[in-house]
Amino acid sequence: MYSFANDYSEGAHPKVLELMERSNFQQNLGYGKDIHCERARDYIRKAIDDKGAEVHFIPGGTMANLIVISAFLRPHEAVISADTGHIFTHETGAIEATGHKIITVAGKDGKLTPEAIRWGLRRNAFEHTPKPRMVYISNSTELGTVYTKEELTAISQLCQEENLIFFLDGARLGSALMSKKSDLSLKDIAQLTDVFYIGGTKNGAYLGEALVITREDLKEDFRYLIKQRGALLAKGFLMGMQFEALFEDDLYFQLAKDANDKAERIVDILKAHRVEFFVEPASNQLFPILPNDFLEKFSKEFLYVKFDDMEDDKSLIRLVTSWATTDESIDALGEFFHKHYNYK
Amino acid sequence: MYSFANDYSEGAHPKVLELMERSNFQQNLGYGKDIHCERARDYIRKAIDDKGAEVHFIPGGTMANLIVISAFLRPHEAVISADTGHIFTHETGAIEATGHKIITVAGKDGKLTPEAIRWGLRRNAFEHTPKPRMVYISNSTELGTVYTKEELTAISQLCQEENLIFFLDGARLGSALMSKKSDLSLKDIAQLTDVFYIGGTKNGAYLGEALVITREDLKEDFRYLIKQRGALLAKGFLMGMQFEALFEDDLYFQLAKDANDKAERIVDILKAHRVEFFVEPASNQLFPILPNDFLEKFSKEFLYVKFDDMEDDKSLIRLVTSWATTDESIDALGEFFHKHYNYK
Amino acid sequence: MYSFANDYSEGAHPKVLELMERSNFQQNLGYGKDIHCERARDYIRKAIDDKGAEVHFIPGGTMANLIVISAFLRPHEAVISADTGHIFTHETGAIEATGHKIITVAGKDGKLTPEAIRWGLRRNAFEHTPKPRMVYISNSTELGTVYTKEELTAISQLCQEENLIFFLDGARLGSALMSKKSDLSLKDIAQLTDVFYIGGTKNGAYLGEALVITREDLKEDFRYLIKQRGALLAKGFLMGMQFEALFEDDLYFQLAKDANDKAERIVDILKAHRVEFFVEPASNQLFPILPNDFLEKFSKEFLYVKFDDMEDDKSLIRLVTSWATTDESIDALGEFFHKHYNYK
Amino acid sequence: MYSFANDYSEGAHPKVLELMERSNFQQNLGYGKDIHCERARDYIRKAIDDKGAEVHFIPGGTMANLIVISAFLRPHEAVISADTGHIFTHETGAIEATGHKIITVAGKDGKLTPEAIRWGLRRNAFEHTPKPRMVYISNSTELGTVYTKEELTAISQLCQEENLIFFLDGARLGSALMSKKSDLSLKDIAQLTDVFYIGGTKNGAYLGEALVITREDLKEDFRYLIKQRGALLAKGFLMGMQFEALFEDDLYFQLAKDANDKAERIVDILKAHRVEFFVEPASNQLFPILPNDFLEKFSKEFLYVKFDDMEDDKSLIRLVTSWATTDESIDALGEFFHKHYNYK
Repeated sequence: MYSFANDYSEGAHPKVLELMERSNFQQNLGYGKDIHCERARDYIRKAIDDKGAEVHFIPGGTMANLIVISAFLRPHEAVISADTGHIFTHETGAIEATGHKIITVAGKDGKLTPEAIRWGLRRNAFEHTPKPRMVYISNSTELGTVYTKEELTAISQLCQEENLIFFLDGARLGSALMSKKSDLSLKDIAQLTDVFYIGGTKNGAYLGEALVITREDLKEDFRYLIKQRGALLAKGFLMGMQFEALFEDDLYFQLAKDANDKAERIVDILKAHRVEFFVEPASNQLFPILPNDFLEKFSKEFLYVKFDDMEDDKSLIRLVTSWATTDESIDALGEFFHKHYNYK
Repeated sequence: MYSFANDYSEGAHPKVLELMERSNFQQNLGYGKDIHCERARDYIRKAIDDKGAEVHFIPGGTMANLIVISAFLRPHEAVISADTGHIFTHETGAIEATGHKIITVAGKDGKLTPEAIRWGLRRNAFEHTPKPRMVYISNSTELGTVYTKEELTAISQLCQEENLIFFLDGARLGSALMSKKSDLSLKDIAQLTDVFYIGGTKNGAYLGEALVITREDLKEDFRYLIKQRGALLAKGFLMGMQFEALFEDDLYFQLAKDANDKAERIVDILKAHRVEFFVEPASNQLFPILPNDFLEKFSKEFLYVKFDDMEDDKSLIRLVTSWATTDESIDALGEFFHKHYNYK
Repeated sequence: MYSFANDYSEGAHPKVLELMERSNFQQNLGYGKDIHCERARDYIRKAIDDKGAEVHFIPGGTMANLIVISAFLRPHEAVISADTGHIFTHETGAIEATGHKIITVAGKDGKLTPEAIRWGLRRNAFEHTPKPRMVYISNSTELGTVYTKEELTAISQLCQEENLIFFLDGARLGSALMSKKSDLSLKDIAQLTDVFYIGGTKNGAYLGEALVITREDLKEDFRYLIKQRGALLAKGFLMGMQFEALFEDDLYFQLAKDANDKAERIVDILKAHRVEFFVEPASNQLFPILPNDFLEKFSKEFLYVKFDDMEDDKSLIRLVTSWATTDESIDALGEFFHKHYNYK
Repeated sequence: MYSFANDYSEGAHPKVLELMERSNFQQNLGYGKDIHCERARDYIRKAIDDKGAEVHFIPGGTMANLIVISAFLRPHEAVISADTGHIFTHETGAIEATGHKIITVAGKDGKLTPEAIRWGLRRNAFEHTPKPRMVYISNSTELGTVYTKEELTAISQLCQEENLIFFLDGARLGSALMSKKSDLSLKDIAQLTDVFYIGGTKNGAYLGEALVITREDLKEDFRYLIKQRGALLAKGFLMGMQFEALFEDDLYFQLAKDANDKAERIVDILKAHRVEFFVEPASNQLFPILPNDFLEKFSKEFLYVKFDDMEDDKSLIRLVTSWATTDESIDALGEFFHKHYNYK
């Protein structure tokens, strides 16, 4: 059985494990004040060319999302998201549990647009509706699509004009930046947003998202907020080590590129069989539409996630690759399509 | 510099690391549904002799506390804690942030008593006060003291009589159970409480607290609540591995005993110098009272935490040992006292 | 200037004021434990033929909604509402501020249907989404439409099958029940729902919504929850008096009928001019679509609320009547249409 | 039976009722935007000599407290209160339900002192405790005591030095200001605090607390927050009328003086009998300590609230007067003591 179900099936990249082993008996300060966290912070600050950026390590994405959103909003303020946004669809109401409404607007292939944000602002413009105060996007999106520099800049400008905090969820930021469809750098991300995170869990780390706050007035007291939500791990150095190993050379980007390359191999196989995609593939998450009878067989040898029922006895599924995806598994997938897929 | 500042300065026990390495390229199911979590759950269920117990792995103690307390209380219900309780003194208002008041009552050496709980019930007995619905204790306590079976049984019975949920924070449960002052077993803990956790972070794991729910009506939907607070890690198997390694033989208990033995060596050294303790030592946390001029010198070679100012130019400090504390560091401490401590 | 902007422009019905005056120097118990509240409770229990029903008086509708919803849901549970529902569109995120997500589904003329609820259940059926646990409707709806007995029964049955709490917001329940399109009685409402309220503010009272809990397991501790949200008024007898006066004979229903009759007069006038309605009028809220140039003139003599822009230079507006609407104002409206409305 | 149980047993002062009657059929704008609210706001702004002050009307004190505290604090911030403070002892955890911890410090006769606040700051000065950001007091206090100008100024200065928001709960502000022990004016209150309210419910109104925000940066969006907590009444003009009637001439202060005078008559009676008081009487709340066997008889003719058991078979009780307390009831109390009280 090969799994293309997600990009968090395996442990950490061997270089991460090596660092953990090597440092195992060091005595570190607690709660993220250790030298591994410090080094990782320095690498990241250097990568985005912002010495004053605050960098915090948070165990997971949902936690990062709920801490960021509740840290910066007053009780009556809300966050605008695409209706496909992860915070709206897959977090068990974690944001609302902190007291804030998510204002959803129509996404386009999973991406938010200035037009949609403006529509949300118009619909929420008096005191009997919550006050929009933040824009949430993820890059790559829930549909694996990626933002271009032009698109991100347009949203960034609108946020400045409308006094909205711009927050980018980068649970899969590596794959987004290494996408052939992307012209964005990590530095661009840092400059165009107010706060974002660099996902570790899905790109080589055991756990950890590196949260970066670039906007000055958002920096105050942030460690209090991490602690209050239970995310300030006693052995914070564990997360520091993950990002130290991933960023001391460009391992983070290499791993993401590797995941994308493997996804591309799968795209080639599927396109050769004229498989239709729900959205044009751009990163390590692929959304092909496949016949149900084919999937019945396929599911016996490959793990994937079903997303939705489609017309004509077909289903929308998700296939995901990662740095740990083996060539062998992709070969097997290719052979399987060759043998069993004969539709047009 | 030797650190006695806490029990979370080092990484994981080598056997934990070994398992992580060995399993690194396995493909696991996400969110704690993998075989490592399953094995760890089975070990724990066996250790407490309760096949139906629910076991969940939570990244940290504050998170475990806030999830448990908010999961089981209605909005107007409150939790009773000793005034020294960790949830009241060291979690940045994490419990209140979920909407619930902590009713504090006087502790005795950090421990809660039936009398104190009853006082809290009397003081909160009408609809203009919150309704007490849960009792929180930790074992060992914030002062390193431990509960006896008689004490725990008395609280347990009171909780049953008064319809209170009994929750035990076991961030340092290993050290408590291996204390020479303790006559409790893990199975006793499971039988006398409704929900408790077995702390991994401070006893050999990189991270993770194993939360055990034994009371039937508290089990429903608990994974939703973990997810909503951001604590359902995608690579949940990482925590599963920690507890698999710690519980497949009795490693967990050996490590705790080891920490206690080292603490005892320190107690012997200090008592030989007639150092006074704030509470009688019982586990891996020690609370000696030492002269400030001595501490000035001591702090140049040893890390510790200062707790409070005391009379006569003295301070209350905390010294903590763990499985990773070296004999060398204790020898150094002994020599230091021999050389520099001449008070009576 | 005549106002058709809402049904809360004037004070209380004279009979309410009379009772307030007459009782002004009585000494009452505080917090709703007085004889006026008791009498009002008895009248309401009699009207619904349920001696065991709990009746609480809450100052306003938003407060009633947020108390009810947060009282009965665990943190991960959510409430299903039509996308036009008041709690979703007009309460500044009050429900989310208590920690709960509103799952919106497509309404039909402002009404919820079993099909839509089932769709919401299917879309929220695993632990990464909130768990649907309550259904919220209002009668009359935000669009002035009313439920039939058949429709309400169908939703009620579905709620029982799916273990959902059925909550009816009756801010305008009087007008709904007295609608010519309604075959429901107050007793039916009590039998088919688990909890509902009888709106006073918009039907003769200065303030107050009479919240009725019929389902046994929802009754416990409810006064704690009212107090905690700040809604347990010290002079609760003020609300008791409102409902005592409205329910000691059938004044409540007469006032609602009166409001509906006046609305019907307006409908007749507008239909005579072939004005189109967004939804077929049924109660005291009317939603005509009128040309913008006509509205420009109209707005100089009449207050109304604009709801939305429509095609062809028209707007959707809302006109509302109440027991206090004067015949004179309707005559004036009739004359205005006669003089100024010449479209087809 | 005469009631000295509280100051909210009767309706509104006749002048308030008159205004309500006179204005009953006016058509008012909703949600506090009407002319009565405007007039009341102007009267209050004039009384405090601050044209820019924001004035909002809130139905009750608990609601005012929870809205103010949650409006201005970030999630990790806390409010400091005396341990006898109303928000800590009598509001069913309403503040904690908004997510904020109350840091309690020792009060002195119910009053907060700079020393106590400083102690609270020292005890909550790092990121594992909540961050103190607001100081809450009430005037008069829960024990009926009142602040002097010197005391209030000292707290005010400390708040400025320590960047703390200074909030005064004035549920019984009238009685405090008219106390013979007070040298404070309403204008002083406005100048020395950042936000406070003028209690209506307990001094002549049916309901309503006039919340005054004087500090510029706290004014933004406050109506959103009132709406979100359910406190923006549709018929807000009802509260406007209360304060219009109370402040158009000095009725508010006359009523408070009247209540105090009646309390003084009671004090004279009790002191003539050498009754001991728990704290020296200063306003309309009295706290005598009386023998239990006397109280047994007393309770058959007079309503009061028992506060606590005391030594020597005595109890601490509370007696309260208001503008509506009759001379007859005080005469009766005098006679009762004359007949039945023979202790020394």
